[in-house]
Amino acid sequence: MTLSLNQWTTRHWSLPEAVDGSVRHGLEAIGLWREKVAEQGLAQSAKLVRDAGLRVSSLCRGGFLTAGGLPGEEGRQAFADALEENRRAIDEAAELGAACLVLVVGGLPGVKPGEPLGKGFSRDVAGARERVAEALAELAPYAGERGVKLALEPLHPIYCPDRAVLCTLGQALDLALAYPEEQVGVVVDTFHVWWDPRLFEDIARAGSRIASYQVCDYLHPLPEDVLLGRGMMGDGVIDFRPITQAVLDAGYAGDVEVEIFNADIWAADPDEVVATMKARYEDVVLPHP
Amino acid sequence: MTLSLNQWTTRHWSLPEAVDGSVRHGLEAIGLWREKVAEQGLAQSAKLVRDAGLRVSSLCRGGFLTAGGLPGEEGRQAFADALEENRRAIDEAAELGAACLVLVVGGLPGVKPGEPLGKGFSRDVAGARERVAEALAELAPYAGERGVKLALEPLHPIYCPDRAVLCTLGQALDLALAYPEEQVGVVVDTFHVWWDPRLFEDIARAGSRIASYQVCDYLHPLPEDVLLGRGMMGDGVIDFRPITQAVLDAGYAGDVEVEIFNADIWAADPDEVVATMKARYEDVVLPHP
Repeated sequence: MTLSLNQWTTRHWSLPEAVDGSVRHGLEAIGLWREKVAEQGLAQSAKLVRDAGLRVSSLCRGGFLTAGGLPGEEGRQAFADALEENRRAIDEAAELGAACLVLVVGGLPGVKPGEPLGKGFSRDVAGARERVAEALAELAPYAGERGVKLALEPLHPIYCPDRAVLCTLGQALDLALAYPEEQVGVVVDTFHVWWDPRLFEDIARAGSRIASYQVCDYLHPLPEDVLLGRGMMGDGVIDFRPITQAVLDAGYAGDVEVEIFNADIWAADPDEVVATMKARYEDVVLPHP
Repeated sequence: MTLSLNQWTTRHWSLPEAVDGSVRHGLEAIGLWREKVAEQGLAQSAKLVRDAGLRVSSLCRGGFLTAGGLPGEEGRQAFADALEENRRAIDEAAELGAACLVLVVGGLPGVKPGEPLGKGFSRDVAGARERVAEALAELAPYAGERGVKLALEPLHPIYCPDRAVLCTLGQALDLALAYPEEQVGVVVDTFHVWWDPRLFEDIARAGSRIASYQVCDYLHPLPEDVLLGRGMMGDGVIDFRPITQAVLDAGYAGDVEVEIFNADIWAADPDEVVATMKARYEDVVLPHP
């Protein structure tokens, strides 16, 4: 396993700056975001990363597949739009040579990420999960034809209303197992899964289905904007070593991405953030420091 | 199933006021809190409830059993203190004739509820769960001898750091099944479990182990103090009817407690709160309104 910088950790760096920073700090891989790729242009982004000799450990992100659960024409159109957007994301992942496209599947239909409940949303969480399965049936073959692996990311249940009705690794894995391994895998992100009493059992069960291992800490208490509750490893409550060991034991040999959403870390000097990330990776993430 | 007022929903009412309010609104049961019972005195509280003809649907709460995970003498003493405190809670539940004593088992050792992380806490969530099992082995027979049923309450994973390392109904149930049914059951609280992809499977599996069914809504977004994110039924994201139906199908025939921690509801006229609670129970909680 080697360390990879998910570029949202240093979100004020442009893609060229993140590529340059990764090389300067001796990293071999980088996790990209579609927004940053779009800023730079897809072909240019792919060339920059390739010329720098970096692997693309993941592309973030596709998903938001649940709005089809809204009634009538609105739902049908939302479902079609989501599939189209995800096909674009798959095409981008293919051109970038990304190891996987991360899918954040979406929350309850009609609940917008990070916004208060409006009118006309759906409380049907089971139905939303069915929409995800239906979308996956469309997208997995499309991804497979382009050599892209979709990586289903279970999110912490606090994000179930607005971001992901996939709440546990086991649930994501059950969905993934319906498809060939090269088409659909799962993400193990410590922030989202550390509390799960079935975590170690499900990591072992996932085995080669683990498409991405992402690490960051879980801060306590969470800040008011719970999206920003991700901390540098060692600053929160997670005991990383047993999780890393379990992921290794499951056979994972990919990159370890550090993906942190945190106002203080974004405000800091990105070079210092990367230096700290490397030190903490050695100190608290690797099973044998 | 009949409706019960958990007295924390009207927390500015004293115990006599809550008993009087429950009777005035035609309720048959009440959920009590130890703090409120202590204010009034145990014997007097028991007499008030009995004379009013109310069932005590639960006593909240025992638990906080994990501090024994701290090292050395501090841990040993904390474990002994927790057992002693829980034996007192069991004695109180017996005297009140409560249908169960709710256990909120505690979070990571050394993390104080609602407080920032201090020094010297433990990240060993697996170890904390073992401490809970050890404590239960001590407390279940003690409860059994006094005719008290312990009700293990899984809390939403957001409370895992500081309040409950029991995060899912399935996990609570697995612990409970090691003991006779009259000694240990589980709580199904909609706020804590609505997101769980295994919820309906685990409610069915729980069957007669369901010792308490508590309802309140899950607000989105949660307020800054996440403890206060509980809302009146209908104000949040939970689809209650299928959950209530599943609890009924599992054979539960006890009371349905409404337990809401919410600053606005606490500031409102308690009589209006109880009236709204009754209306919403009919409108959105019962499977067939």
